[in-house]
Amino acid sequence: MSSSTPLDLSHHLSSEAKARIANPMKSIWKLIQQRPDVVMLANGASMADTPSGDPHPSLYPLRKVEFELASTTHGDPVRTWTSLGPAAPSVLLSSSTSSPSALPLNLALQYTNGAGRPEAQRAATTLTQFYHAPPDHVTTLTLGNFDGVTKCFRLLGESGDSLLADEFAFRAITNAAAPQGVRWVPVSMDEGGMVPERLEAILDGWEERMGRKPHVLYTVPCGQNPTGTTLNIERRRSIYAIAQRHDLIIIEDDPYYFLQYPPDRITPHPLVPSFLSLDTDGRVIRLDSLSKVLAPGLRLGWLTSSSAFHAHLIALTDSSTQHPHGLGQAFLAELLSPSGWGLAGFDRWVDSLRGEYRRRRDFFMHEFERRVAVPTGVLASACAPEAGMFVWIRVCIERHPRYLGNLDVQGEATGRARTNGAQLMEELFLRCLDSGLVIVPASVFALSRDPERLERDDSAVPIEDRSNFLRATFAGTEETMCRGLEILGEVIGNFFGG
Amino acid sequence: MSSSTPLDLSHHLSSEAKARIANPMKSIWKLIQQRPDVVMLANGASMADTPSGDPHPSLYPLRKVEFELASTTHGDPVRTWTSLGPAAPSVLLSSSTSSPSALPLNLALQYTNGAGRPEAQRAATTLTQFYHAPPDHVTTLTLGNFDGVTKCFRLLGESGDSLLADEFAFRAITNAAAPQGVRWVPVSMDEGGMVPERLEAILDGWEERMGRKPHVLYTVPCGQNPTGTTLNIERRRSIYAIAQRHDLIIIEDDPYYFLQYPPDRITPHPLVPSFLSLDTDGRVIRLDSLSKVLAPGLRLGWLTSSSAFHAHLIALTDSSTQHPHGLGQAFLAELLSPSGWGLAGFDRWVDSLRGEYRRRRDFFMHEFERRVAVPTGVLASACAPEAGMFVWIRVCIERHPRYLGNLDVQGEATGRARTNGAQLMEELFLRCLDSGLVIVPASVFALSRDPERLERDDSAVPIEDRSNFLRATFAGTEETMCRGLEILGEVIGNFFGG
Repeated sequence: MSSSTPLDLSHHLSSEAKARIANPMKSIWKLIQQRPDVVMLANGASMADTPSGDPHPSLYPLRKVEFELASTTHGDPVRTWTSLGPAAPSVLLSSSTSSPSALPLNLALQYTNGAGRPEAQRAATTLTQFYHAPPDHVTTLTLGNFDGVTKCFRLLGESGDSLLADEFAFRAITNAAAPQGVRWVPVSMDEGGMVPERLEAILDGWEERMGRKPHVLYTVPCGQNPTGTTLNIERRRSIYAIAQRHDLIIIEDDPYYFLQYPPDRITPHPLVPSFLSLDTDGRVIRLDSLSKVLAPGLRLGWLTSSSAFHAHLIALTDSSTQHPHGLGQAFLAELLSPSGWGLAGFDRWVDSLRGEYRRRRDFFMHEFERRVAVPTGVLASACAPEAGMFVWIRVCIERHPRYLGNLDVQGEATGRARTNGAQLMEELFLRCLDSGLVIVPASVFALSRDPERLERDDSAVPIEDRSNFLRATFAGTEETMCRGLEILGEVIGNFFGG
Repeated sequence: MSSSTPLDLSHHLSSEAKARIANPMKSIWKLIQQRPDVVMLANGASMADTPSGDPHPSLYPLRKVEFELASTTHGDPVRTWTSLGPAAPSVLLSSSTSSPSALPLNLALQYTNGAGRPEAQRAATTLTQFYHAPPDHVTTLTLGNFDGVTKCFRLLGESGDSLLADEFAFRAITNAAAPQGVRWVPVSMDEGGMVPERLEAILDGWEERMGRKPHVLYTVPCGQNPTGTTLNIERRRSIYAIAQRHDLIIIEDDPYYFLQYPPDRITPHPLVPSFLSLDTDGRVIRLDSLSKVLAPGLRLGWLTSSSAFHAHLIALTDSSTQHPHGLGQAFLAELLSPSGWGLAGFDRWVDSLRGEYRRRRDFFMHEFERRVAVPTGVLASACAPEAGMFVWIRVCIERHPRYLGNLDVQGEATGRARTNGAQLMEELFLRCLDSGLVIVPASVFALSRDPERLERDDSAVPIEDRSNFLRATFAGTEETMCRGLEILGEVIGNFFGG
């Protein structure tokens, strides 16, 4: 890693994080680490940091775990895998107690510390170095991005804090912080994702009466869920500069990073630089996931941060979930090893997967045009997303015969909805359901502003009046897309006609 | 399950638990569950509760995962496994996307809800029904007991609460609750574990000025870490009755349950009935682990509770770690299936493991007698534990030439240490280290009372004056035990002689 001097950002830590007490056992292990020849009556197996009683590895009944995995050496690996089915070539990865393994099973099955086994940590670091080459950062394994992000909320979020997020967000994540007493301040978005000028306006206009000034920005920069938007490099630079000016920590939740479909293919790889790669201050905490490129049920990901935040994240992990499961760690270590896919094989897989999703996206957009946009006279429209799995379909709700555009003359002052767009969208959603189509309405993702604390820049239309969108995915099969879009076109046609 | 009417115990929930907001997606999934024929444009794969963007299972690059495991059909399976080494017979369990599996891999690798996949949940329930037959309880999968217990602390613990625990405890667990603002009230123990009369005295004598009366009891009832004590059935009944009288929730953290070595072997199985098995009210939350009987790195366990607490635990899991990893869930489902060990094979394994640990314990006690007790003239003594992995060695510190028994005449009133026993034990620990022996001093486990809030029953000696113990384990090899105890005998002899 190249050198840089990370800032002291410890004032961002929550009082919970600061109050966390180290395991008293740790001071003992530290004494021991200088003496590798000791006799252990303290613990059955290892010098792990949390030896609550570690059975001797000879008593683990597991000898080997073997994974049968798609081969990445044959042409376009995803195409080969999906088209040949059971006949597709595969590779076997294994972690065993006897034969050589990147992470031997007897080690994978012991207790370890919250960051994970070094072998698995190194595998994740290899990926981060290759794709992001961050200035000066450390890897912590997670149980996937949900685990990692909510740990960041515990690390940084104080009761009474107002934190910043994309105004349309995956609410399960933002809601997770609410019981801690964290409130969300939504930042306006457009087709390019979060608008830097709106972010800065919120921060510039923040007044003492609104409470502590926001010190954390949570964002999904690629193929954002639900809007499908991707921040371009200019916006990223602007947002990072704002974070520096206003002392923000950026939580970069990037599960769709590997699923980018930019208009032009650029070498060596066509992916937008991450916030992490720009982070000279140590103010970015980046979350990477295997869920979208391998499988969500693996529940394994990694977090990259300054070493100061890393230490606090390990302390939190040692005090809650403990380290990730050994089976997943063994899998990751073997996967990135020379006997597994290796970095080159992983890159071939994700490149091929990008091709696959790009085809699905193009198929979706083509069918959308044919089955929804054209037959309804463009009562619905959508841009092709540059990343991820989601298309954000705009419904021209203002063209509905029962649309009322000026319900509440007080609206502008109170921040309340001024139109009946939200009700009409709810009706449309229920009509879709009645016709056998599940598609997610924008209302499910909208972060409302607190009307008591309207930010100064909030001259904009209330989010309820801008929630005329439906989130659809192109991750399903072509048959599902065709049938689903067919229904959508019909329902919209009928709804606006009736 | 037999019928009973669980009480409404919702007043025990923390304000965080009560404030937790359900994922807004869930209401949509509920609408859908009545309609299995719908077309999903909402999500790639499943109707999981947290579909943040689920890739289609055809794109998962995993075809099969296979586990090579000890066979339990050959004589004494643990002996066979450890003595034959690589030649020991094994069985293969596999979860695959094509051939029949207890939990097919393509399902295991999808998102699911916080309780885990039904197939894995059922496997855990099978074990709980067989060993505990609880009145009316539900299974929630966990990432092991540390994860489960700390989730219980989040579920029940409020800032300012005083919760009850064994006076010697695994401090990493109790410390985990401290940053939430939870304080611990230690309950006195003797050779039989927590003393019910002392528990009742604390509750009877609780005064308003001390804050909210304790409403949660956290205890390790079998082979307690660090004391090795096991609560007998009479104590369990007494403690449960106290919990009913004083409205306590009991968190029964029982990782050593399967490692019980009672004096007489009783059929059908010789294990002490758990708090869970006595729980007619729904006030017991029990935690079971695979860490001590299979391997800790699996990071998989399960929690058994009333359905009301189950719902809140799932909400917390869906808002933090998400469901346990699919690899472990597939392993558990296959393990308990007829093509795996099944319940009978699991029971043979744990029975055999009990035999193994009983031998190790007996070996330890024999060597302890020979190498420590006899040569030092019983400067140290220990009872053989009836469960677990730990021996709690009492050092007769009052026989040390430099022992001072009445340091602080104010001690009785202030709760401060009245002897220099703690300092001498620290010296002894450092001498052991200097001689190459790691053994854990009791001070690492002692929960001090808050001197500002001495409970009325606290006529007892301060814990600092009763911390003249060392925790040793017999989970290591015979060679380790011999060398370790040899050193211990010598160090104690020299320390008291010098």
